[in-house]
Formats: sequence, structure tokens, C-alpha cells
Amino acid sequence: MRNLKLTIRYDGTDFFGWQTQPGQRTVQETIEKAIGEITRESRVRVNCSGRTDSGVHAVGQVANVYTASRLSCETLLKAINSKLPDDVNVREVVEAPQSFCANKDAVRKSYRYVVQDGRQQDPFLRKYAWFVRQNLDAEVMARAGRCLVGRHDFRCFETEWPNRLTSVRTITHLSVNRFGECIWIDVEANGFLYNMVRAIAGSLVQVGRGFWPETQIADVLRAMDRRLAGPTAPPEGLFLMRVTYHPCPT
Amino acid sequence: MRNLKLTIRYDGTDFFGWQTQPGQRTVQETIEKAIGEITRESRVRVNCSGRTDSGVHAVGQVANVYTASRLSCETLLKAINSKLPDDVNVREVVEAPQSFCANKDAVRKSYRYVVQDGRQQDPFLRKYAWFVRQNLDAEVMARAGRCLVGRHDFRCFETEWPNRLTSVRTITHLSVNRFGECIWIDVEANGFLYNMVRAIAGSLVQVGRGFWPETQIADVLRAMDRRLAGPTAPPEGLFLMRVTYHPCPT
Repeated sequence: MRNLKLTIRYDGTDFFGWQTQPGQRTVQETIEKAIGEITRESRVRVNCSGRTDSGVHAVGQVANVYTASRLSCETLLKAINSKLPDDVNVREVVEAPQSFCANKDAVRKSYRYVVQDGRQQDPFLRKYAWFVRQNLDAEVMARAGRCLVGRHDFRCFETEWPNRLTSVRTITHLSVNRFGECIWIDVEANGFLYNMVRAIAGSLVQVGRGFWPETQIADVLRAMDRRLAGPTAPPEGLFLMRVTYHPCPT
Repeated sequence: MRNLKLTIRYDGTDFFGWQTQPGQRTVQETIEKAIGEITRESRVRVNCSGRTDSGVHAVGQVANVYTASRLSCETLLKAINSKLPDDVNVREVVEAPQSFCANKDAVRKSYRYVVQDGRQQDPFLRKYAWFVRQNLDAEVMARAGRCLVGRHDFRCFETEWPNRLTSVRTITHLSVNRFGECIWIDVEANGFLYNMVRAIAGSLVQVGRGFWPETQIADVLRAMDRRLAGPTAPPEGLFLMRVTYHPCPT
């Protein structure tokens, strides 16, 4: 069996998230079905870097799949895409070592959370940003977020803690930048807890609104209590941008 | 009765165009209903600068409406928007002279046609660009389009000519620019024939594909025959950007 690494993008709007669920349209099932139609294999199992929730988008999701197909990566790429609906596609197919696991081997993941602020929601952003009807101070949000960079116990930003063995993660990059009416919150880490980016976004927006002083993010982090963090921001603003692996996993 | 000038934007994806039609969801009906709910007038008639077709978007559509309401423009703006679905909103409401007609008084209109080219359709652009599975030469398209600027008989780009008394119009600006995988065809004119921008886009893409020499646009214009022009580009790539009126119509 070959092990293939796939890079996938999807508009999450009309998907019930990544993971296959009975009676729901999911990204996983859609891709597995397309691959099965091409390779004629009945049990295709696509293993992703990390599930995304309903409504969350991906620009650079990564997954791996075992197949006995002898088609070249280039042929598979075209053939699979020809079977996919227009809200999801595979950007790249490359050979990976037998042992490569898109989930366990991920070294870093990068998410972007998009907020649109101002008086009026932009109809073209309604499915791709969280609309906050207020002018947010992006510079204060940027300063407030700095304390999150580094190795910390992020349980305060985890929905339904404890989900994992440890809630210690390392954020390697966090920036907040304004582009017109949009604010991009970019977060890169060696791993994320459930709803972590959305809880960080919800908390930084509390600061941007002026509801919280900028020092409160550090207080929340220190308190390690989910109830003190901001609300979980809605899924439509979240994009999985990139998953990084050790050099040359392929 | 007051006459109000409205600036409107909408994602045309889920509308059956501007104009009210029985049994269809249209922008006109949606806005008239919202205004009626606020002003409690039973016959609200919103008159726009020019109807847009099913699937066509607008960033700066302009319309006027007569009302007996005494609410301030600011209050009306907020109240109307509170009644509108999230794929359309009114960006501005200002007082206009009694005689102001959004259609007849338009001096210039500006459209953008968006093409996405390359090997693979971007799922996030599928409703906001025409996807052409080929690398287009945007520089050649830009040069080819130059001959259209100025006063010409554009009947070669009119669907079902003759629709109007005259097919002579003046294009005051036409540019083609690439931004990554997107090509923007921007056209400003003192008026447009039916499907004119989409026929121009369809023709320029023939040049960009290398199917036509760049001089063929001038040949088509000169021949004044719709059958010689390119195909009508699909509606999802078209945006009504701006409508210009004589200084201070308000």
C-alpha cells in the first residue's frame, strides 16, 4: 500500500465539519467517496491533521490516505478533483513514507480567525468572518495577545476541559492585524485544544471592544479557568491555514 | 413626499436578480418589503440605477424611493437594515431632490468582472468569480481592451440587439489587472447595453486564452455583429461597483 499526503481546502459553510457522521454532509466522507470512485477501493480512510468543526474553513488542511492504486499523484489529483463538489478540493497529492500520520506527525498548525467590525455587516463576508457591530481597537488586541506566545497551560481556552492528557501547548506566533474592516488574528502553535483559537478570538474581541483592559488576557491565562475567558467566537471566522511537518516527510 | 437616495450592496448568489418577479426572491422585493415594514406604507416602489441579473452582485447599487415617513435618514438606515436578510444591506440613505431618478440621472456606472484562472477552482471564489481552467495572459487582455475605450457602437456586445434606441455608448475607463489568481476587468461607461460587460469579459478571455489575437477585439467592435464576440461570461463574476451622478444630486 502507498501512503499519500493530501493538502485540502474547503469552504466549511455547507459541511457539517470534517468528521464523518451518519446523515450529515462532511468533508471526510465527501473526500473518501471521491477517492473510492477513482481507486475503486471500498474502504478508503482519510486521516486528517485535526478535525474542523461545522462551518470552519480550511485553506491548507493536510491528510494522509493508504491506497493500492498505481495511478500517479498527478493523475490522482486531477481525477479526485473531478469527482469533488466545488466547495472542496485537493490542492496537492504527494507520496509519503509508510509511517507518515497527518495527525500525529504535525509539528505546527496555523489558524487565522477573521473578524469584521464596524456598523454594518458586509454581505460578502457573512460566511467568512465574525461580524462585531462595534469598532474594535486592533492595536490593543495585538498588544493584549502577546502574553499568549510561548509555552503555557491553555486550559482557560479549552472547551470542556480536560479533553486531552495535557493542556500545555506552545504558541509560536500570534499576531493581530487590521485590513480595512477586517481584523486577522493569526495563531500558530505546536497543537491546539478544542475551540482554543475561537476562545482566544472571543477573548481578544472583549479587549478590542473595550470591555476588558488589555492586561486581562494575561489574568485569564494565569487563572486557568474557562469561565473567565471570553465567549467562543463563531465557526465561520475560522480558517485552518497550514500544517507543518518535519522537513521532507514525503 | 420625500425622495430618498439609497446605496445598496448585495451578494447576488441567492437572489433571482434585482427586479421583482412572482414567486422569486429578488433584491427589489426584499428591500421594498423591509422599507414598507418600517414606514408602514403599503406601496413602496424602489427604483434602481439599472437592474442586475440573477447571480450578479452589487457593492454600490443606487436606488431612489418616495416616502411620507418623517424618520431621519440615519434612523431609516438602521431600521431598514434591521429588517433585511444578511445578504443585502443599505449602506447609505440621503435626501434627494424631488426630481432625482436613480436610473435616468446616472451619469456613469462602473462594473468589475472577476475571473479566476489556473488549474483549480478556489472554493472560496466559486460564487464570486468566473473560473477559467487555464492560465490567462492578463497583460494581453489589458492591451486588447484598450480599443474599447471611447465612444463606439457596442451592439456587438449586446444580447438580443436591438434592446435600446441606440447602442452607442462611451466607455470612460477599461482596465485589466491581475491579483494572484484573480483578474479584474474594470469597466466604466456612461451606460451599458444588456449583458455588455459580460460579453466584453467573455471576449477578453478569448484573447487571454490565446484563442484570439489581441487585435480581434477591435475587429469584433468594427463588425458590429454579436455572433463574432465571445461568449457571455457567467453572472457570478460580475459586480456593480459604483453609480455616479452629477455633483450633489442630494
